[in-house]
Amino acid sequence: MYQAITAEIVSIGDELLYGQILDTNSKWISEELDRIGVRVVRKTTVGDDQASMLQAFSSAAQKVDIVLMTGGLGPTKDDLTKNVLSHFFGSELKLFPEALEDVRSLFESRGRALSATNRNQAYLPANCQYIKNAVGTAPGMWFEEKGSIWMSMPGVPHEMKYLMEKAVIPRLKDKFTLPVIYHKLIKTVGIGESWLSDIISDWERQLPSHIRLAYLPSLGEVKLRLTGFGTEQQQITSEVEEQIEGLLPLIAPYVYGFNTDSLASAIGHLLVQKRKTVALAESCSGGYISHLITGNAGSSEYFNGAVVPYHNAFKASILGVSEATLARKGAVSEETVQEMAKKVRLKFDADYGLSSSGIAGPGGGTASKPVGLVWIACDDGRTCHTRKLQLTQDRTVNIQLTAVAALNLLRETIIQKSE
Amino acid sequence: MYQAITAEIVSIGDELLYGQILDTNSKWISEELDRIGVRVVRKTTVGDDQASMLQAFSSAAQKVDIVLMTGGLGPTKDDLTKNVLSHFFGSELKLFPEALEDVRSLFESRGRALSATNRNQAYLPANCQYIKNAVGTAPGMWFEEKGSIWMSMPGVPHEMKYLMEKAVIPRLKDKFTLPVIYHKLIKTVGIGESWLSDIISDWERQLPSHIRLAYLPSLGEVKLRLTGFGTEQQQITSEVEEQIEGLLPLIAPYVYGFNTDSLASAIGHLLVQKRKTVALAESCSGGYISHLITGNAGSSEYFNGAVVPYHNAFKASILGVSEATLARKGAVSEETVQEMAKKVRLKFDADYGLSSSGIAGPGGGTASKPVGLVWIACDDGRTCHTRKLQLTQDRTVNIQLTAVAALNLLRETIIQKSE
Repeated sequence: MYQAITAEIVSIGDELLYGQILDTNSKWISEELDRIGVRVVRKTTVGDDQASMLQAFSSAAQKVDIVLMTGGLGPTKDDLTKNVLSHFFGSELKLFPEALEDVRSLFESRGRALSATNRNQAYLPANCQYIKNAVGTAPGMWFEEKGSIWMSMPGVPHEMKYLMEKAVIPRLKDKFTLPVIYHKLIKTVGIGESWLSDIISDWERQLPSHIRLAYLPSLGEVKLRLTGFGTEQQQITSEVEEQIEGLLPLIAPYVYGFNTDSLASAIGHLLVQKRKTVALAESCSGGYISHLITGNAGSSEYFNGAVVPYHNAFKASILGVSEATLARKGAVSEETVQEMAKKVRLKFDADYGLSSSGIAGPGGGTASKPVGLVWIACDDGRTCHTRKLQLTQDRTVNIQLTAVAALNLLRETIIQKSE
Repeated sequence: MYQAITAEIVSIGDELLYGQILDTNSKWISEELDRIGVRVVRKTTVGDDQASMLQAFSSAAQKVDIVLMTGGLGPTKDDLTKNVLSHFFGSELKLFPEALEDVRSLFESRGRALSATNRNQAYLPANCQYIKNAVGTAPGMWFEEKGSIWMSMPGVPHEMKYLMEKAVIPRLKDKFTLPVIYHKLIKTVGIGESWLSDIISDWERQLPSHIRLAYLPSLGEVKLRLTGFGTEQQQITSEVEEQIEGLLPLIAPYVYGFNTDSLASAIGHLLVQKRKTVALAESCSGGYISHLITGNAGSSEYFNGAVVPYHNAFKASILGVSEATLARKGAVSEETVQEMAKKVRLKFDADYGLSSSGIAGPGGGTASKPVGLVWIACDDGRTCHTRKLQLTQDRTVNIQLTAVAALNLLRETIIQKSE
C-alpha cells in the first residue's frame, strides 16, 4: 500500500496566539498541498519564543516528511525564526551575498535606500538554500535536514504565496512520488446539516470504505466533501464522480455548485450562460452582496450595479420607492423590498432586481420589527418573489445570512424562470 | 513571580487540514482568553482521526492548565470528539436525560420532530459536566481530569461563542487567579513596517524588558502591539500608556485608532463627533467600502448611502458623470473619480463624497491603464482630493487595498478640513 507523504504546517507569531490576527496562511497552504496529494496531518501555532519553536520543530521532525513554516521573518526585532532554525540544525547565520543583492535591488526599484534593519535580512542559516522572494524583503529558506524537508516563509500572505507557487510546490513535486487522492466538494444552500444527513443517509451507508464523506457547515450553507483514496487517478476520479451522480438527484434543489464555486460565482455562471443581468438595492446588507458579486473576475458582464440607500430618504429620492409605502408599511416591509427590487431593476436596466431591508442590529428593533427581521425580494420583470427572514441578534451574522438568502432567492428565480 | 495560567486550543476536523474551511474559532477564543489574562501557548489542529486526537490530548495534558477543543461534535458520522475523549479519560458514553430534553425542546421550538441522528447527541462521556448549548444541538462538555480543565465545544462559530461566553469564561474566572497583562494595539495606515520601525527605533530601544513591542502588518496597515507584564493592573496599565504617550507624537499622521477600532469604525467615530456624513460611489471596489462602513453598528448615523455604477453607462445615467469626461478620459481617470465623488456627495446630500475607479483585474488592463491602476477621490464640498494607486495583479488584494487607501483619504480629508 502506498505510504502517504505527510506535512505539518507550523505558524509562528505571538499575534496568532493572542488572537490579534487570523491565520489565513495555513488554510491556503493546506489547500495547495491537498491539491498535489500531500497529506497535512497537523497544524501547530506557537509564539515568538525559542523554547516553543524548538519543541514544535522537534515534534514535527519525528512525525512528517515536510515541515512548512510561516512567520517570524520580518525585519523587526520580534522575529526569531531564522535564529531558532539555525540553532535547531546546529548551523550558524552567515551573509548570503545574493540575498543582500536581491533586497537592495527591491529597495532600489521602489526608489528607496536600504534601511539598516533590512540589511540584516540577508543573514541566513549557513545550511539553508536561499530562495528569492521577489515580492518582499524576507527571504525563503529551504532545508533538507533530519530526514525531512523544511521550508521557512514570511507570514505576509502574498509573499508566502509567491514562495509557495514559485518554489515550494514545484520542488515538492520533484522530490516526492505523490499519491492519488480525489476530492470533490458539493455545495448546498437552504438546508441544514441534519436534514441533509437524513435525506442522504441510505446513499451514505452504501459508500465504499475508500470514499469518505464529510459535512462542512458554514453560515447558511453546507458543503459535502467526498474524498476518494486510490492508486490510479482515472479510476478513483470516476468512482467518486459515479457516487456523486447517485447523490445529486436526492438534493438537487439545494446544490448550487462544486469545489471552488461560491454562491455568487455560481450565480455569475448562470447569468452569463443565460445572458442576463442583475442590479441590487441593498439596505441592511449594506453593500455586502455587491461585494460578493464583484469579487469575481468578469462580474461586469452580468452585474450592472447597486444602490445602497442606507437612509430611508434615499430609498425614495434615489430609488423611487413611494413615500406612501415607506410611511404606511415602513422601510422593513414586504412592500418596500418589492418596490426596491423593481425600481432598481428598471433604473439599471437589468433583468433581475434584488433587494434587502431589515434590522441588522444591535439597535433599532421594536416589538413588531425585532432585530434580525429581514425582508428580501427578487424581481424578474414578471413576478416579484419575496421572503421574510427572522435571523439572529448578531449584526455581522445577520448581514452574512441576508446575503446568502438573497443570493439564493436570485438563484432560484433564475432557475425557475428558465424552466 | 506569578505563574501564568496557560491554555492550548485544539481544533479538530479534516476540513481544517485540507484547507476547506478557515479556522476563525481559534482566533476568537485566543482573544477572549487574552482578555482575561490566560496565556495561549499553543494551537494545534488535527483531523477526524482517533490517533491524532489522542496524541494532541496527551501532549496538551502535559503542558497546559486549560485545553479548549472545538469541532467534531455535529450530528453526522464523521464526528468523533466525544468518543475519543471518553476513551482518553477511560470513561464511557451514557445518556444524559437533560441533554436529550434540551435537544428535543430546541427541535420543538423550530417546529420539527427530533431526527434520529440528533438523538445520539445526548450520549456523552459519563465523567463530563454537561453544558447546555441553547443555540444548537451539539452540547458542551466540561472535564476536570489529569490536572487540567478540558472543554469540548462544537465547531459552528456562533455555538462555540455562546458556550464560551455563557459557561467557559465565567468558570475559568472562578477556577483560577488570573495574572496581570495589559495589551494595547496602536493601529496605523499609510506606512510600511520597516519605515515605521526606522522612525521609532530609538523609542523601541528604551522600552523596559517587561513591555514588549510587536509589529503586525496586514494589507495596507500595520498594527503595533504593546504588551506589559506585571503584578498590579493599575501600574502596568499606566506604564504601558505612558510609553504610548511617548510613541504617538512620532507617528501621529499614521495612527487611526486603537485596539478593536477598524479604519472604518474610527472614521465612523470622527464623523459622529463632527456631525458629518459620507456617501460613496464605488466602481472597482464594488461595494466593499460600503460593506466595511455598514458593518459597524450605528453607521446609519453618518453613512447616507452608496452607488455602485459598475457599468460605465450608469456612471453617467445614475451618478451624472459627464459623458464627455468618460469618453475623453475614460472611466479610470482622475477626472472621472472627481466627478463621481462630487456627484455622489450631492446626490446623497452628504458632507463627503468618496469614490473609486480602477482595473481590479485579472482582465481589462491595457498598456496605459494596467491591471492594478486605481484612482480614488474624496470631495469635501470645497476641494476634491485625489490619489493614484498602482496596486497588484490580484483582484482580491486590489479591492482590499483600494478600500484601505480610500478610507484613509477620507480620514485625512476629515482631519485636515477640521484643522
